[in-house]
Amino acid sequence: MIKVSIVGARGRMGSHVVEAVKAAEDMELSLTLDAGDDLTQITAENTDVVVEFTVPSVTLDNVLTLVGQGVDVVVGTTGWTEGRLAQVREALEATANELQSVFIAPNFAISAVLADHFARLAAPYFESAEVVELHHPDKVDAPSGTAIHTAQGIGEARAKAGLGPVPDNTQTDGGSRGQVVDGVHVHAVRLRGLNAHEEVLFGNAGEQLTIRADSFDRGSFMPGVLLAVRKVNSGDFPGLTVGLDHFLDL
Amino acid sequence: MIKVSIVGARGRMGSHVVEAVKAAEDMELSLTLDAGDDLTQITAENTDVVVEFTVPSVTLDNVLTLVGQGVDVVVGTTGWTEGRLAQVREALEATANELQSVFIAPNFAISAVLADHFARLAAPYFESAEVVELHHPDKVDAPSGTAIHTAQGIGEARAKAGLGPVPDNTQTDGGSRGQVVDGVHVHAVRLRGLNAHEEVLFGNAGEQLTIRADSFDRGSFMPGVLLAVRKVNSGDFPGLTVGLDHFLDL
Amino acid sequence: MIKVSIVGARGRMGSHVVEAVKAAEDMELSLTLDAGDDLTQITAENTDVVVEFTVPSVTLDNVLTLVGQGVDVVVGTTGWTEGRLAQVREALEATANELQSVFIAPNFAISAVLADHFARLAAPYFESAEVVELHHPDKVDAPSGTAIHTAQGIGEARAKAGLGPVPDNTQTDGGSRGQVVDGVHVHAVRLRGLNAHEEVLFGNAGEQLTIRADSFDRGSFMPGVLLAVRKVNSGDFPGLTVGLDHFLDL
Amino acid sequence: MIKVSIVGARGRMGSHVVEAVKAAEDMELSLTLDAGDDLTQITAENTDVVVEFTVPSVTLDNVLTLVGQGVDVVVGTTGWTEGRLAQVREALEATANELQSVFIAPNFAISAVLADHFARLAAPYFESAEVVELHHPDKVDAPSGTAIHTAQGIGEARAKAGLGPVPDNTQTDGGSRGQVVDGVHVHAVRLRGLNAHEEVLFGNAGEQLTIRADSFDRGSFMPGVLLAVRKVNSGDFPGLTVGLDHFLDL
Repeated sequence: MIKVSIVGARGRMGSHVVEAVKAAEDMELSLTLDAGDDLTQITAENTDVVVEFTVPSVTLDNVLTLVGQGVDVVVGTTGWTEGRLAQVREALEATANELQSVFIAPNFAISAVLADHFARLAAPYFESAEVVELHHPDKVDAPSGTAIHTAQGIGEARAKAGLGPVPDNTQTDGGSRGQVVDGVHVHAVRLRGLNAHEEVLFGNAGEQLTIRADSFDRGSFMPGVLLAVRKVNSGDFPGLTVGLDHFLDL
Repeated sequence: MIKVSIVGARGRMGSHVVEAVKAAEDMELSLTLDAGDDLTQITAENTDVVVEFTVPSVTLDNVLTLVGQGVDVVVGTTGWTEGRLAQVREALEATANELQSVFIAPNFAISAVLADHFARLAAPYFESAEVVELHHPDKVDAPSGTAIHTAQGIGEARAKAGLGPVPDNTQTDGGSRGQVVDGVHVHAVRLRGLNAHEEVLFGNAGEQLTIRADSFDRGSFMPGVLLAVRKVNSGDFPGLTVGLDHFLDL
Repeated sequence: MIKVSIVGARGRMGSHVVEAVKAAEDMELSLTLDAGDDLTQITAENTDVVVEFTVPSVTLDNVLTLVGQGVDVVVGTTGWTEGRLAQVREALEATANELQSVFIAPNFAISAVLADHFARLAAPYFESAEVVELHHPDKVDAPSGTAIHTAQGIGEARAKAGLGPVPDNTQTDGGSRGQVVDGVHVHAVRLRGLNAHEEVLFGNAGEQLTIRADSFDRGSFMPGVLLAVRKVNSGDFPGLTVGLDHFLDL
Repeated sequence: MIKVSIVGARGRMGSHVVEAVKAAEDMELSLTLDAGDDLTQITAENTDVVVEFTVPSVTLDNVLTLVGQGVDVVVGTTGWTEGRLAQVREALEATANELQSVFIAPNFAISAVLADHFARLAAPYFESAEVVELHHPDKVDAPSGTAIHTAQGIGEARAKAGLGPVPDNTQTDGGSRGQVVDGVHVHAVRLRGLNAHEEVLFGNAGEQLTIRADSFDRGSFMPGVLLAVRKVNSGDFPGLTVGLDHFLDL
């Protein structure tokens, strides 16, 4: 049994993690902490892996403290920069335990991570590629960071394969052709009832390939979180790992 | 048997009409004319209905001549304005035959006409609505005239139902949210391999309705053309009729 | 303000209705009752409309009692037969209030009701039609009642329009062609993560029309429930009405 | 310039290959042969690569003859068994040219090959998986060979990952749940207007991944055929290669 403690346990994501850990047959729930709680309660005795879902302003301090406590950490909080990641790497190198590990992911939805990966693989083989992302109307940014990341991956793969620009003979447009990211047109739909969705469209003469990832609710992140807990605990990924794709056998 | 003559018979659309009429069990092909041919060869003796697919610069003259010849006309050429339509109405009123009719349609694809109609019917019942059109990359205008028409229909139906603006909390956007037509966001995708496609998305809390019309090739217009020939020939639609929706029992 | 009481208020659907009524600006929540509570607490003084979401074994008695109490009733419980509906009609005729009304719906999802309606309207214009329904894997029946209803509607509309059987040259099939309902092939997909979804596919040479309704969660029924409360309360639908389509302006 | 000859040049596929080779900037069309023509006209002097699209009854003899002529061969004809493939391997081993190569593919649509490959990669990460294939109504077999192949790949990947059966609580079904191939439900839709399409659906709690390949017409196979000609001519694939996925960098 993997002993899992959760930091940010009463938050929107954390409360889902609590339930997911309880339901997992190979895990047992240890401590559940929130803002104001003392993180040094978490030790290598009571915890194998900590799942940390808090806010950008505190997550770095939390992770550094937890590394000092000698436990592995899975981090779902956003806001990580190269400088912050470097601090985590240093902290890990300073520990005596060579197998200790920290995992940070911008997106725990397996379907979204796979879609992004497949888009990059498929890109060299198609003349045309566009990205449509669809979200609930309360989202403040457009397009989504995930869609930008996917478009960049497609752009890179096309460049590496020596493909030129996508064919586009549009001469008059009032703004309907979307935002161009690394040569790839990206469209953002906002619709009540949706959560987070991405569709990648590829086209050649006579054929189309479509890859679509739907995240219907926060529960969609739990399989990815549990996978990360298991991988981090396995000892196969010492040090800092960023991105769920490293845990998928692709 | 309905005797059908075709003007523009060697054109891209006309050549499809020739084949479609030959294959229709209730029609027989009479004359097939093209640019330079004398339209007065077409008479009420050899022709019940003329199908006219030419170019905007000659279609008005063609229709006026054919009305004078005493035959019904189905017109697929674009470029009609209110002033041009008025000239056709006058010509029809001047004929002795009260049942004589002219039919003009911007789109003969039944799926597209139905999608447009259903979008207008559904619009009052949803908080959110957006339109995505997808075409081959050689199309010069974006978004398509059909998508603009659909968005306008949704906007009108929302206004009539007293709905306010669609919910949209976007605060930063680099152009991905598309072109806003009567309050409805319209997105245009251009992809090699596609022909002409439209998707209308409606959303409420917890639910989505999607209506999609795909036109894979020019053959998609033939069922609509044959339907128009039959309706025009029935005598049930004297005078000028514009739009295939008038011939559908909706 | 419409005074709304709820019978079955702690049930899966009822608890959503409680929240929806609280959030509606034109309604106020009156009584919330459950199994064992005395329905005669509900009177025309404290209640304009009752929403009843219970179980098939008690719903008829509940409705008859509530009609006797002189209030309008919106019923979401299933299991209604012609005989049971007749008893409700008799009870309504026996009341002094000519405007009193009962509304019963098998499906309150507006998107599903519209998809069903549009499918029937579109059916006469296409050679081919098939239905694919998709649900969570805990559903015990396949295909869904909604999909059967849609297929029957398509079958009726095709028959009325004089269409023959759908084209199908399949000669060897191991069971992949689905269940045939009134001549229409119906397919059922069961997928973890889904809730209730239906896709209707129509095809002609060169074109396709697709109508899809997605119900992502129970919240999707609330706009339909609130619409029914308002319509029942309006006095425009005296007597018994079955089916949400009667309240949509189609 | 790669010198390409075509066997079966007047056939449905072969005639498309003739046009595609003519349009390719790095190829020139050499001989175009059909049933009854002498294949020994094709030699290493006039031809680098032969594309063979004929019928199952003659393709083996054609390939053996062409191998004897010292040219590389790309084969699109179906009906290959292990025994027939072994004969091709023997013939290749008997030639003096170690780089000589034969390539055989059941499907040249890049989108279909990628979808099949991605389905296998994604399968270990999802509780549920189903396949829906959609074709024109003149297809005689259901489900398609491609869909069976995809389902088998998913089944194998699930078994290898230690996944149990897909969740499915269906208790009453009239045939709508499709054909079960290696534990994966496969559905076949037949619709006028379609050509060849496959959709693979994966589901976890709260999320869905959809991979869809559309082949709108025979032109969709040409990018795959040209890719095969280039790869076979490169000398990087001596001997017999089966399946277009070997030529994609995945």
